Amino acid sequence: MPTATIGPELQRLIDLLAKMPGLGPRSAKRAALYLLKKREPVMRPLAFALDDAANKVKACNICGNWDSIDPCAVCADADRDSSVLCVVQDVGDLWALERAGAHKGRYHVLGGLLSPLDGVGPDDLHIGGLIARAKDDAVTEIVLALPATVDGQTTAHYLTEHLGDAGVSVTRLSQGVPVGGELDYLDEGTLAAAMRARRSF
Amino acid sequence: MPTATIGPELQRLIDLLAKMPGLGPRSAKRAALYLLKKREPVMRPLAFALDDAANKVKACNICGNWDSIDPCAVCADADRDSSVLCVVQDVGDLWALERAGAHKGRYHVLGGLLSPLDGVGPDDLHIGGLIARAKDDAVTEIVLALPATVDGQTTAHYLTEHLGDAGVSVTRLSQGVPVGGELDYLDEGTLAAAMRARRSF
Repeated sequence: MPTATIGPELQRLIDLLAKMPGLGPRSAKRAALYLLKKREPVMRPLAFALDDAANKVKACNICGNWDSIDPCAVCADADRDSSVLCVVQDVGDLWALERAGAHKGRYHVLGGLLSPLDGVGPDDLHIGGLIARAKDDAVTEIVLALPATVDGQTTAHYLTEHLGDAGVSVTRLSQGVPVGGELDYLDEGTLAAAMRARRSF
Repeated sequence: MPTATIGPELQRLIDLLAKMPGLGPRSAKRAALYLLKKREPVMRPLAFALDDAANKVKACNICGNWDSIDPCAVCADADRDSSVLCVVQDVGDLWALERAGAHKGRYHVLGGLLSPLDGVGPDDLHIGGLIARAKDDAVTEIVLALPATVDGQTTAHYLTEHLGDAGVSVTRLSQGVPVGGELDYLDEGTLAAAMRARRSF
């Protein structure tokens, strides 16, 4: 809440901080106070890092990952398996898979999901590039690592259809019980899917 | 977690964001992705606002409030009651009282609390300025709006002692049941204090 007590420079900082995911109006004030107490060690370096990243970080021309080099570090890494492309919704999901060490191949970032309700069609996503990459002889498998939501599944079906004549096998992440998950707390849909996809022990 | 997937500029931004209160390593990544998507509307303005506030926002020479003008807007406001000084731990508490519209007088920001365990003594806080202000003839009451913690109460006692010969009445915020608070969820200390300080209806 803007009050006369908070000067315009500080209020603008708080308003901008409050736009970040994970910070609300109140935690933005706490963050602003923290930053003012840490001007040299955090506040000025953060201002520089924001500017620097805004200038240097670009989407990779090949896969859409964000990096300061183009092609990005993943695309440039000769040790990665070029035969498997993992399709993700956005860069955050790519980072999640990297954190898990779950994929040793390359990626393709769609930049969103098909969503008729929100007016997101195939032309709004990086689908053309994916189909072109899938036709590369080196690529044999496309893993669709898309969320298990309506939009995610819509997108997966669309991609599966359009990747049909690229001569690749299209796979998707398995669905089931999360590691460490209690059955009692799982939703019925996940439990039913896990039962249907049961495997021999 | 730093991985080769995340370039150095981006990693440094994430590391700095993760230092802010309310953001951890994972939410800092989410925030960085959000900012990269909103470069012009949020990311660059935030970089500028951080730098601008770091340069312009200073502690008020009179009360210690943070503002880009000195004396701060509260001290400069002629409509405020100069007879009542409200002593707070830091600027966040001043903002909280302003948000509540709870105080129409002036403030004094201590910049911390006495804490023998953490090695914070009277010389580390703005206590000298408070005592000088308390001796001003216009000031008749000092409200200690300090937290109801051990350090807060230690500080309150110290201030009460040292304000003894300033010729002002020293008061403190009442303790009791928070507005909207269920008795069942309150700690025993608060309930006992509320009972001791009961008032006629």
